[in-house]
Amino acid sequence: MRISELSRTSGVTAASIKYYSREGLLPAGERQGYNQTDYTDEHLARLRLIRSLIEVGGLSVAATQRVLAAIDEPDLPLSEVLAHAQGALPRATTPPSATARDRVRRLAADRGWHVHDENPGVAAVAGVLDSYRRLDREDLGSLLDRYAAAAEIVAEADLDLVDGAAGDRDRAAQTVVVGTVLGDTLLAGLRRMTQEHVATTRHPQPHPQPHPQH
Amino acid sequence: MRISELSRTSGVTAASIKYYSREGLLPAGERQGYNQTDYTDEHLARLRLIRSLIEVGGLSVAATQRVLAAIDEPDLPLSEVLAHAQGALPRATTPPSATARDRVRRLAADRGWHVHDENPGVAAVAGVLDSYRRLDREDLGSLLDRYAAAAEIVAEADLDLVDGAAGDRDRAAQTVVVGTVLGDTLLAGLRRMTQEHVATTRHPQPHPQPHPQH
Repeated sequence: MRISELSRTSGVTAASIKYYSREGLLPAGERQGYNQTDYTDEHLARLRLIRSLIEVGGLSVAATQRVLAAIDEPDLPLSEVLAHAQGALPRATTPPSATARDRVRRLAADRGWHVHDENPGVAAVAGVLDSYRRLDREDLGSLLDRYAAAAEIVAEADLDLVDGAAGDRDRAAQTVVVGTVLGDTLLAGLRRMTQEHVATTRHPQPHPQPHPQH
Repeated sequence: MRISELSRTSGVTAASIKYYSREGLLPAGERQGYNQTDYTDEHLARLRLIRSLIEVGGLSVAATQRVLAAIDEPDLPLSEVLAHAQGALPRATTPPSATARDRVRRLAADRGWHVHDENPGVAAVAGVLDSYRRLDREDLGSLLDRYAAAAEIVAEADLDLVDGAAGDRDRAAQTVVVGTVLGDTLLAGLRRMTQEHVATTRHPQPHPQPHPQH
């Protein structure tokens, strides 16, 4: 198909298609003449993946390029595809304190988790603990164990899906990336819904209030 | 204290302090003369909260201003503080399909959740389901129930903390905001850690690989 049809079907502008192609997110189309390039269904599928990672998952173009490169590397083990997908997600810019890192390491040890110190989750959790301390709200750290139990449920579900695609490496790699990146959005969304449900169940409001529109 | 001391103690530059003050995030200090303004420990505590919401929680300055205004409104019910905190978090820009919204409504009904249609979680979850469909990966929707079970654990923990501060409205409002905003980061971080643990437990690697540094 021509770029105009690819743009219409994918919902991505022709300018963005050319940009993604230049940045290495999308393979080049096949030149058919001076001013025409031909694209296939594989280009369409790739564009849809790019859109999901950027628009729904919130990844940058550079981060999307890196995880797509990990999917495209046929010999890369899935554990490394996972590490790339995790590394692509937004992360804290301020390094956490050594004290908070130690506490996260202890939590992992207590739960029997084997996790590298470089796992971006370690710095993220430690950064939140540092915030609690700065705010003089170390009582919020009591959330940690129940959140960890919830995270275990989610990670088991994630890995069941990946293992279900085990015979097909490319599909399994896509599952790792899509599951990791969109899973954060999915979980945060479900959390907003249950928070409202639990709050209104515990404290019924006489006059239900609409959500503020920001 | 003077602005220089406030800046040193909070780790926020004097320029940012003045900017937050102009934007209504921080009450003005007390004028002590032509070129001197006096700040209190309350200014310091507020600055630490601002920093946590922006740097660790990823909120914009405008969103931070709105949640702080909700905390500062003494008569605002906690359920509305929660709605403001949820509304402040980043959200999808593309509206989801009606089909996906219906599916999210059914999920909520099946689990006995009472949730407004305007809850930002509904659009977030529906947007992820739309992505699965576009990617021809509707099998990923099988994650929904286990993620929902995990979200229930998290929301119960969140609300237990808020109810624990019930006698003190300002503390409870702060708990709602900090818990909601930093809770996403906490949960996502713990998910990264458990994903690595579950993946390496199921599929031990002969040579452990360090995490890629992006």
